[in-house]
Amino acid sequence: MLTGHRTWMFDNKPKIISTGTTGGPFEAKGMLADDFDFLHSDLWIEEDSYEKAHKVLLEEACERAIEKAELTKENIQFFFAGDLINQITPTSFAAETLGAPYFGLFGACSTSMEGLALAAYIVNTKGANHILTGASSHNTAVQKQFRYPNEYGDQKPPTSQWTVTGAGVGVVSDKGDGPAVTSATIGRIVNMGMTDANNMGGAMAPAAVDTIETHLKERNVDPSYYDLIVTGDLGHIGRKVSLDLFTKHGISIPEDMYQDCGLMIYREGQPVLAGASGTACSAVVTYGHLINRIKAGELNRILVVATGSLHSPLSVQQNETIPCIAHAVSIENAKAGE
Amino acid sequence: MLTGHRTWMFDNKPKIISTGTTGGPFEAKGMLADDFDFLHSDLWIEEDSYEKAHKVLLEEACERAIEKAELTKENIQFFFAGDLINQITPTSFAAETLGAPYFGLFGACSTSMEGLALAAYIVNTKGANHILTGASSHNTAVQKQFRYPNEYGDQKPPTSQWTVTGAGVGVVSDKGDGPAVTSATIGRIVNMGMTDANNMGGAMAPAAVDTIETHLKERNVDPSYYDLIVTGDLGHIGRKVSLDLFTKHGISIPEDMYQDCGLMIYREGQPVLAGASGTACSAVVTYGHLINRIKAGELNRILVVATGSLHSPLSVQQNETIPCIAHAVSIENAKAGE
Repeated sequence: MLTGHRTWMFDNKPKIISTGTTGGPFEAKGMLADDFDFLHSDLWIEEDSYEKAHKVLLEEACERAIEKAELTKENIQFFFAGDLINQITPTSFAAETLGAPYFGLFGACSTSMEGLALAAYIVNTKGANHILTGASSHNTAVQKQFRYPNEYGDQKPPTSQWTVTGAGVGVVSDKGDGPAVTSATIGRIVNMGMTDANNMGGAMAPAAVDTIETHLKERNVDPSYYDLIVTGDLGHIGRKVSLDLFTKHGISIPEDMYQDCGLMIYREGQPVLAGASGTACSAVVTYGHLINRIKAGELNRILVVATGSLHSPLSVQQNETIPCIAHAVSIENAKAGE
Repeated sequence: MLTGHRTWMFDNKPKIISTGTTGGPFEAKGMLADDFDFLHSDLWIEEDSYEKAHKVLLEEACERAIEKAELTKENIQFFFAGDLINQITPTSFAAETLGAPYFGLFGACSTSMEGLALAAYIVNTKGANHILTGASSHNTAVQKQFRYPNEYGDQKPPTSQWTVTGAGVGVVSDKGDGPAVTSATIGRIVNMGMTDANNMGGAMAPAAVDTIETHLKERNVDPSYYDLIVTGDLGHIGRKVSLDLFTKHGISIPEDMYQDCGLMIYREGQPVLAGASGTACSAVVTYGHLINRIKAGELNRILVVATGSLHSPLSVQQNETIPCIAHAVSIENAKAGE
């Protein structure tokens, strides 16, 4: 297996043989509603706390993915996942339900691709036959913890983003059919000294550009190698910042093949200000919409760059700047390269 | 590479070529003071918050390990680490200082071996030459977040444990000298329905036994293969529970070759109640004391079983039971098997 300093190439082409995606009522009104396996009409999902509802979203996505792969829980050799809640309890409780050996991850909104990179690496090197990986978030649980409970009705600045309620997971396997995971470039912390936790897109954009630039260089491909390069949750502001940085760094990426999951999931008119965010954002868009488009032959090669803002409410209160990260994973139509 | 369902064998014998360990004033009075690289006389470490002091402990351990390996930061291909603080900010800020591509982990007190298992796996399969991995905690920062600030003087029950202040890291490399990482068994969630966050040792013991039993079976060795099997932070109560469970499951492990990091680090008379705990506990004991004993030829083969209690203050307030996990990694004198 070739490795650049930060890039792994997966020559054995581990496949995403199935996916599971769940969402809430707000996602049901969004642009990508048809790409979800389940959509709940109520944020509580018949549970008595938002954190339990959060856990159920992930459990359902896992169940659905395993079922679609025609596997059982016992076939899942490892589970790589995480979320935004303190001590990632929704993920750990879902891991209990799943019963599989479990690696808890914390990468904030970069978790989806942190998990997929590790899962693909391990399957590629024959350390497992089937790995389940993914990420989840719940708008109300996250708002309560990071900002204010939504019930308080606090006003949000136009730079703020809307946390996705949902879960997206995939089964990565050494055999079977599905899009192949072909490479991964691991992010390092980029911190431009920003302190505004209501402008995470702006804070994360330089990390996304750093990882994309590194990926293109270490994989030795032009941006045009991909049909789509998609960031996790930069939103309007972060996307603009990243386009400016590409120009500055002499990287030519046509605007229409550079998109952001945070700008794809909701409809114009939904009150999401600068766009969507949350650990689930890139997870549900990738494991739902994007994989569906690859399977439909509409996309052949994509690079998913999940971006994470690694602050905490406490670090913001203590006036720390925001450390950001982005992990990139390429997913390709298994037949494309043959 | 052989794999049992949960066990990886590392046939290329990745080596721990150097380690770095730091601690605070309480650790300086403990049994293993001589095994630390740095010991601070003050919990604040000249910082203005306990979280920043926490970050400095990890930064210093990383610096020391890199220096002892005669490497530079630029040689570190990946950094796998985590801690107990919400959104693991001390680790992410230290990752910024380090500058290496970074995988954030959350495994509570099991993080040390979660990271070592992944680092050894990746080096073993030639995905990197040098990986830095480890874990850290800070007594006062953790108490403030999980329980009460120490300054409140709350009374603790005799089952409670003392969070270690410190950081322990290792450089895992494909070349060079040092103890070899020979196998890893990944934990799954074990939840016996306990709800008392002041008795984590008791809650975690069944997870430790599950992982040890699986390890011995999948690696097909007797407990006597090891000179020492050491759990992360079960303390007096958890150790007793696990010994009872071994008897019940028909596993014969002599008491003197079964120890617990949480009972090794402090002296009798230090007011730690049931023992030590914290993400740093197994990390500093392993990367300090145990690796030193292997290098000195006093131990040839050890199995480190880091135990984690994956609750949060919120999950406890919501009356959830405590999901626990344990990851086991074997470390062997590189010459022992030759």
